[in-house]
Amino acid sequence: MERRKVGILGATGMVGQRFIQLLSNHPWFEIAWLAASDRSAGKAYGEACKWKLDTPLPKHIAAMTVQPNVPEGCTGELPKIIFAALDADIARELEPKFAAAGCAVISNSSAFRMAADVPLVVPEVNADHLALINAQSWRKQRGGYIVTNPNCSAIGLVLALKPLEERFGIEGLFVSTMQAVSGAGYPGVPSLDILGNVVPFIKNEEEKMQEEVGKLLGKVDGSSIKMLDAKVSAHCNRVAVEDGHTECVSVKLRKKATREEILAAWREFAPLSGQHLPTAPDQPVEYDDAVDRPQPRLDRMRGRGMTATVGRLRECSLLDWKFVVLSHNTIRGAAGAALLNAEVLARTGQLNKLGVPVNTEAKLQAVMA
Amino acid sequence: MERRKVGILGATGMVGQRFIQLLSNHPWFEIAWLAASDRSAGKAYGEACKWKLDTPLPKHIAAMTVQPNVPEGCTGELPKIIFAALDADIARELEPKFAAAGCAVISNSSAFRMAADVPLVVPEVNADHLALINAQSWRKQRGGYIVTNPNCSAIGLVLALKPLEERFGIEGLFVSTMQAVSGAGYPGVPSLDILGNVVPFIKNEEEKMQEEVGKLLGKVDGSSIKMLDAKVSAHCNRVAVEDGHTECVSVKLRKKATREEILAAWREFAPLSGQHLPTAPDQPVEYDDAVDRPQPRLDRMRGRGMTATVGRLRECSLLDWKFVVLSHNTIRGAAGAALLNAEVLARTGQLNKLGVPVNTEAKLQAVMA
Amino acid sequence: MERRKVGILGATGMVGQRFIQLLSNHPWFEIAWLAASDRSAGKAYGEACKWKLDTPLPKHIAAMTVQPNVPEGCTGELPKIIFAALDADIARELEPKFAAAGCAVISNSSAFRMAADVPLVVPEVNADHLALINAQSWRKQRGGYIVTNPNCSAIGLVLALKPLEERFGIEGLFVSTMQAVSGAGYPGVPSLDILGNVVPFIKNEEEKMQEEVGKLLGKVDGSSIKMLDAKVSAHCNRVAVEDGHTECVSVKLRKKATREEILAAWREFAPLSGQHLPTAPDQPVEYDDAVDRPQPRLDRMRGRGMTATVGRLRECSLLDWKFVVLSHNTIRGAAGAALLNAEVLARTGQLNKLGVPVNTEAKLQAVMA
Amino acid sequence: MERRKVGILGATGMVGQRFIQLLSNHPWFEIAWLAASDRSAGKAYGEACKWKLDTPLPKHIAAMTVQPNVPEGCTGELPKIIFAALDADIARELEPKFAAAGCAVISNSSAFRMAADVPLVVPEVNADHLALINAQSWRKQRGGYIVTNPNCSAIGLVLALKPLEERFGIEGLFVSTMQAVSGAGYPGVPSLDILGNVVPFIKNEEEKMQEEVGKLLGKVDGSSIKMLDAKVSAHCNRVAVEDGHTECVSVKLRKKATREEILAAWREFAPLSGQHLPTAPDQPVEYDDAVDRPQPRLDRMRGRGMTATVGRLRECSLLDWKFVVLSHNTIRGAAGAALLNAEVLARTGQLNKLGVPVNTEAKLQAVMA
Repeated sequence: MERRKVGILGATGMVGQRFIQLLSNHPWFEIAWLAASDRSAGKAYGEACKWKLDTPLPKHIAAMTVQPNVPEGCTGELPKIIFAALDADIARELEPKFAAAGCAVISNSSAFRMAADVPLVVPEVNADHLALINAQSWRKQRGGYIVTNPNCSAIGLVLALKPLEERFGIEGLFVSTMQAVSGAGYPGVPSLDILGNVVPFIKNEEEKMQEEVGKLLGKVDGSSIKMLDAKVSAHCNRVAVEDGHTECVSVKLRKKATREEILAAWREFAPLSGQHLPTAPDQPVEYDDAVDRPQPRLDRMRGRGMTATVGRLRECSLLDWKFVVLSHNTIRGAAGAALLNAEVLARTGQLNKLGVPVNTEAKLQAVMA
Repeated sequence: MERRKVGILGATGMVGQRFIQLLSNHPWFEIAWLAASDRSAGKAYGEACKWKLDTPLPKHIAAMTVQPNVPEGCTGELPKIIFAALDADIARELEPKFAAAGCAVISNSSAFRMAADVPLVVPEVNADHLALINAQSWRKQRGGYIVTNPNCSAIGLVLALKPLEERFGIEGLFVSTMQAVSGAGYPGVPSLDILGNVVPFIKNEEEKMQEEVGKLLGKVDGSSIKMLDAKVSAHCNRVAVEDGHTECVSVKLRKKATREEILAAWREFAPLSGQHLPTAPDQPVEYDDAVDRPQPRLDRMRGRGMTATVGRLRECSLLDWKFVVLSHNTIRGAAGAALLNAEVLARTGQLNKLGVPVNTEAKLQAVMA
Repeated sequence: MERRKVGILGATGMVGQRFIQLLSNHPWFEIAWLAASDRSAGKAYGEACKWKLDTPLPKHIAAMTVQPNVPEGCTGELPKIIFAALDADIARELEPKFAAAGCAVISNSSAFRMAADVPLVVPEVNADHLALINAQSWRKQRGGYIVTNPNCSAIGLVLALKPLEERFGIEGLFVSTMQAVSGAGYPGVPSLDILGNVVPFIKNEEEKMQEEVGKLLGKVDGSSIKMLDAKVSAHCNRVAVEDGHTECVSVKLRKKATREEILAAWREFAPLSGQHLPTAPDQPVEYDDAVDRPQPRLDRMRGRGMTATVGRLRECSLLDWKFVVLSHNTIRGAAGAALLNAEVLARTGQLNKLGVPVNTEAKLQAVMA
Repeated sequence: MERRKVGILGATGMVGQRFIQLLSNHPWFEIAWLAASDRSAGKAYGEACKWKLDTPLPKHIAAMTVQPNVPEGCTGELPKIIFAALDADIARELEPKFAAAGCAVISNSSAFRMAADVPLVVPEVNADHLALINAQSWRKQRGGYIVTNPNCSAIGLVLALKPLEERFGIEGLFVSTMQAVSGAGYPGVPSLDILGNVVPFIKNEEEKMQEEVGKLLGKVDGSSIKMLDAKVSAHCNRVAVEDGHTECVSVKLRKKATREEILAAWREFAPLSGQHLPTAPDQPVEYDDAVDRPQPRLDRMRGRGMTATVGRLRECSLLDWKFVVLSHNTIRGAAGAALLNAEVLARTGQLNKLGVPVNTEAKLQAVMA
């Protein structure tokens, strides 16, 4: 089977590097275009990028020339599938240009996550939200659209919450995070700020977590999303961990649940089973019953970095239950999340009609019928 | 003024070392006796102890011979003031022996904290609980008693909570900790467990925090304490920090309070002012209005390690308010806490009648009257 | 092809865990027996071991019962290939028992490394030293023998030095190490000793490095080894790194060499090529020409943890050349090293005559001839 | 006694902050002027600076307005004593302007360290080099001059070497460093580069160490310095330590020395004794005979951060002796070093004739005589 060509925006950053790592041997997608800011454009990727992953940068990628971060920057044919790893400010300006050019923009940025007609999706949680793309004006014009995945701190959390919401309903929750430095990109967090230290603040992070959880667990209501009616209170902290966000959660359920019912909800949570998506883990949520797990260094790579590990389920004296959830912030929480979104779009045929005005297509179908 | 002679039990451990550091130049107390387990007894302290603090071990202390951890172990006159830095199991066995021998046992152990007639005290919070000592049988016999300070994770928290409880009442709270490795003593946490990692579990810590907060904020009720009627839910985590426990707190108040009222409660909290206790900080609770403080590396040494720093006061979408509190776990949270307890006891005359049967003393007073 | 059954001594420790990880899917060997100290014997491995690796413990291994660390401890047939991950003191007592029982003991311990008739081998460096096993008394009796690999800090170094010794000769060298905490096992280095710190001392490590390099680069001389005639001066340090030993080396050569000649020596170093040993890396020594490499976090997993990465080759103002070498201390420096030794022994037929008295075998051959 | 007014260039950086910390309660000097780059100029210091030290920023300093980094930037009277904590490029341009304006520029920058007529001084090592200032053209014109202290990695080393050079002569040496991140300033080293890692490269650092040691241990020869005739080979590494550079040294002496002679050389090294300089430590070099010291976390604050701690003296199989030396890189290695230079200049009268054309002064003296 021929692999679909994809491009990566912001290819030199930390998330861009993860995209390259995860796409290097992907059975469905092939990296055809690397784009980055003017500082990098024109250089070989191997020179433009300070590769920070512990698997080698593939030689053929290192040799590719980085091109400018705009549709016109592509000297060849613009790939119709664009993975975007841009800062929010840049994304706000550039992603619509690619959507307007007929591309499926699979974005990791926060820029459009809360826009009414942009799906904010974790496939195991709310793949049905992808229907929102049909409300996007770009979609109607040339087939393009924007799909987003949540903030790295929200993904692990909603994976753990979704099975509980389905079976018991969620009324409110606390979450206190201990987040890895890779979440801030490179150079990101200065070592003087984090060695032997905790920084109890990450700009805009608590706000993002709180609102994104509401949208992710919300319901499609026509061409927008009805938010989950639950109070979410987040405390976000940075700790001296390279990769993997650990989160302490206390949750109040609408319907009482026993410990065994909750464990069963997690164990039986398998919404993508049978779809054979290359990036989907065997088990999206895994419960570890050791008293001191999950731990980022030991558990972040479960399911090739795509599994959220939960542990320490116990009663909460204030709400109902408390537990700890961990997920890899640059795989499940960023590049892997976007990739899984793309795989769902591929599986459901939504990568097929790109770059084609929808009207034309309708006519075409009429003619061919 | 002659300094009172004191002894230290468990002198070679991490908290024992802090006792030595803080007592080395103390104006009221003088180290007269160092005791430790059989492994160390008989050796010079400098040899018996692996000194891990960044101030030098005083030479005269290094030269002292460590003696066995029992009253009879003291070859000279047993000091009547005993600072105890023992593990709970050992403390449970040994501390009563010293109290029975007429000593004021100022304990950092958890062994007797929740005993009905043992005061669990942070002087700024509940110095009036010290009255419980009069209910102790040892006190009646030979004047001795046990006084305890809370777990290192509870002290900073109650310092921040007390001003709120006084003015607004506390109905419930959620606290998620990020605790330093020194809290586990030495060798304590293996480096393989904490480098680049978080361990979301500390044995018995959540239980201790939850019950100790209730007693500390409780009220004297005859010869015992009526616990605070509030629900406390704790999540305890170990992080790669040497010293200083950081805690994220959400609190529900009984009476609504504005931001300014809360800040004023902290600012004006000065229950020990005017008492000139050597170890008391100028300000027990300091609010820092930078967006990213408190941080353990930068703030733990405020007030010579005795001030709790609070920051990030903001509204909580689930309860009322949330904030971060930090305190030094082996100074304010252990040795300094015990020392401050001893200073209050000294100031209030309760170190004067030690080793003397109370009856005798009553007779003596009768005779002298 | 049927896989050969192997046993692991000291299976629950850090190196024991690496053996299990590396042997789990090994094409030639199959774990048939797990042995450990009395504390663990009798328990399921999953319970006896605190698994500290970031790949999951295979379920069938977790279910195996740990047996006592002695040949008689094996309830089934004693595997003839024994990987030993024991502390030196224990190894000194136990390894000879297994050799006497006719086993090939592939040891990672220091106990017998410097014994005259025990080969100390890194296959790429001195596979010919394996001939020493024929001088061992156990070999003559029942076919058993002991083969050792060097200390984790010596392996990366000799891999970098061997190509230089071959082409130019080595007269002396200075090496200063920055070693990972996993080298000390678990619990090993206390976190209070290494967070924000360096410990410039590792017990016996400098002595081991110095003498082992001499033997590894020495020559077979009858039934013993003639040491390399070169002065080696080692400084060993522990740093806050989980895995991967980084070493700064200055070397004096017997024959002048240009930069390009040295790079060529490393590049062309491929003594095992064509042997298809499963654990052998494609390239045992890889030179990285970035100015700031090798780095443990980024480079330790090259060649699945079996490649030594060299960088920063530059002239030395005191000796001739200086460079940095890095290797994974628990894979290339321990379990992987032993495994590669076993693979060479398998390839060269030296795992075939185990447990059979040599005389008997000689007779057998005579009969069959 | 009235304190002399001083200014600080580059006041907001890491070394600038240390200057403020060390000068805050200085008995001889008073901070009168804070200058920094245009980005900070015009703001209150408390706002312009991200204070990263663990002692509080004094309130009166926080309130001072930062002014531009040029002599004309000073709105009041320009202080005649200027502590400069500038990057080398900036220093190269700005420091001469202050010297030309008649200031004593006490510089921590590398810009002029190797200039023939600029003294590079550690007072205990080569205070006599200060005579070089008289060869500076600025000195002749208006009394100003530049004095420098060495790189943070060279200071501890030369303190340990000087007593050996004096008594035995030094022929050559190796030094391999493990340097703290604070040496790179703020933001400096990204946390992703150093958590769980070592970076075996610091730009220009090896070159600086090698040449600076030669000048520091050299001899005044007319109006320049005759370098020490010794080969120095440095390997420089960055490790996950906040403060304190640890260095492994092997040294070849010109004259054989016993262990006891070397220890005596260090013990008796007290070139500043009797001068009562406020920043000078009681003992510039302290030997610790524990097997595993010095360590940065435990020993960097000896002598209030001004003592170099030496340990692990043992024979070197390649050269003569080896040992470990540690010093605080931003106190002894930067701000404290400059401050001590200023104190020596004050004590020797060389801060008295500033801003006055030397000819005028000569005439003045003639008149007054």
